[in-house]
Amino acid sequence: MEEIKIFCAATIANISCGFDVLGLALDNVGDEMIVRKVPQKGVTITKIIGQNLPLETHKNVAGVAALALLSKVDTDFGFEIEIYKNIKPGSGIGSSAASSAGAVYGINELLGRPFSNHDLIEFAMQGERLASGVAHADNVAPALLGGFTLVRSTAPLDVLKIHTPNELYATVIHPQIEVKTSDAREILRSSVPLKTAIKQWGNIGGLISGLYTEDYDLIGRSLEDYIVEPIRSILIPAFNSVKTESIKSGALGAGISGSGPSIFALSEGSKNASKVAIAMKKVYDKVGIAYDVHISKINTEGIKKL
Amino acid sequence: MEEIKIFCAATIANISCGFDVLGLALDNVGDEMIVRKVPQKGVTITKIIGQNLPLETHKNVAGVAALALLSKVDTDFGFEIEIYKNIKPGSGIGSSAASSAGAVYGINELLGRPFSNHDLIEFAMQGERLASGVAHADNVAPALLGGFTLVRSTAPLDVLKIHTPNELYATVIHPQIEVKTSDAREILRSSVPLKTAIKQWGNIGGLISGLYTEDYDLIGRSLEDYIVEPIRSILIPAFNSVKTESIKSGALGAGISGSGPSIFALSEGSKNASKVAIAMKKVYDKVGIAYDVHISKINTEGIKKL
Repeated sequence: MEEIKIFCAATIANISCGFDVLGLALDNVGDEMIVRKVPQKGVTITKIIGQNLPLETHKNVAGVAALALLSKVDTDFGFEIEIYKNIKPGSGIGSSAASSAGAVYGINELLGRPFSNHDLIEFAMQGERLASGVAHADNVAPALLGGFTLVRSTAPLDVLKIHTPNELYATVIHPQIEVKTSDAREILRSSVPLKTAIKQWGNIGGLISGLYTEDYDLIGRSLEDYIVEPIRSILIPAFNSVKTESIKSGALGAGISGSGPSIFALSEGSKNASKVAIAMKKVYDKVGIAYDVHISKINTEGIKKL
Repeated sequence: MEEIKIFCAATIANISCGFDVLGLALDNVGDEMIVRKVPQKGVTITKIIGQNLPLETHKNVAGVAALALLSKVDTDFGFEIEIYKNIKPGSGIGSSAASSAGAVYGINELLGRPFSNHDLIEFAMQGERLASGVAHADNVAPALLGGFTLVRSTAPLDVLKIHTPNELYATVIHPQIEVKTSDAREILRSSVPLKTAIKQWGNIGGLISGLYTEDYDLIGRSLEDYIVEPIRSILIPAFNSVKTESIKSGALGAGISGSGPSIFALSEGSKNASKVAIAMKKVYDKVGIAYDVHISKINTEGIKKL
């Protein structure tokens, strides 16, 4: 194989109670990427369509992730990457993760898969380090593994793929405002009341249990975040209305996607997910904020060959 | 049915990362109880064998739990309870929970099961309130439901039964020292660093996932407690040695049972659980502290009719 064309899934990180540990992949929202073997060693980003992002390998998250992988293998050839960005950077649905994960996935395929998708996570995390200063796995893990993922531990890295119920759908609305990940991190408190932390880990346990048992009601009851959402949601206009209206219109639960500003809701079945999209749009139409909306089944594969 | 004889399981609460939310039931460690219909209304504790505990209904956890149940049903008769205590109060394996849960289970059976075992949890919690000042469900939930249980939320109460792998065994050592639950609560810090809380809920997610997927290695990796164990373990002599030697001899993980002083370890298979018991005993033999040791399969039924 000399060339591969792939779909790089958008992802939702955190997922209410799962701050810094949970993530999921979307099925029909994502970038496309072509990775090509070339005689010249190293990595060249030849084209980025859809967004104004740096082409220099060391300044591009895909380039940095690709170099991290190539530092672990000897090749007498190199790679060219073309990126077709559909995910807007700063939207909170894993734009940098899609590029980082896509680059290492594509190269690994062209090399004959010396690494497992699990192995690739650490390389893709180097792209995340460039993007946000923190080499986190919350988005690259679901992008590479698909479904729901849990980052049980970061040192040593221990990432698990969690069972995903078949009828689980996500609705995501992206209000066209900017929330910097670094700002969203800075406003968090460095300590939390033990009682609140206990509520949070009760919900994590409930959510994971609900995913394995396909208990949609339990999934909904567990989608509560007592720690991060109350603080970060102040950065997102009309967050509470979007959340309340989503749940009123049938969502199991709703929360901040990644560090925002996108808001996600989970629903049982595509019909509910569509109703939720209508409810979300109505809120931002009233407030007068432009938005994108996505409705997607949870993507249990992750990156896909096209 | 005029009389019922039951086995009331001992339980392990907290389970490392699962502070205040997780619990499990033991299979061959527990009290026995006889509950009998009598013409006279109300609840009478007629006999307590094995421990010196109050017979007055309002001062006895079984009595208080029984009255909580009877406040919700009209009967023109009453109940007598005989308690054969094998679980020592203050051991950290749910002595009060066994009595509270047993009383409400027995009465419910004699009434023709007007309540589900889930319903009974709230009544049994009233016994826990008498015992420790806090109406917690960590022990009464596994005593009544069996297996692993998760208290996702206390208000409203939401308790889940979690899948238990078939080859999971517990070894428990009870050093004959006293640790009061109230003291064990008082030394806890009221707030925790967010970073530490995230590690803890990553592990809860890992443990629940490991239970559903029967991944013993993952269960072991997840049995870490960064919040409570480092503080409470100072109240338990040679805790670190017992834990280290348990893991060296084959345990998946180990931690404090309830608020101590008992220490539990989980193992795959009865052989490993027995090896762990030997290792635990050796530590306390050296230190010169008397102990009881229990080896038990996880009890997936909870209270059993005898």
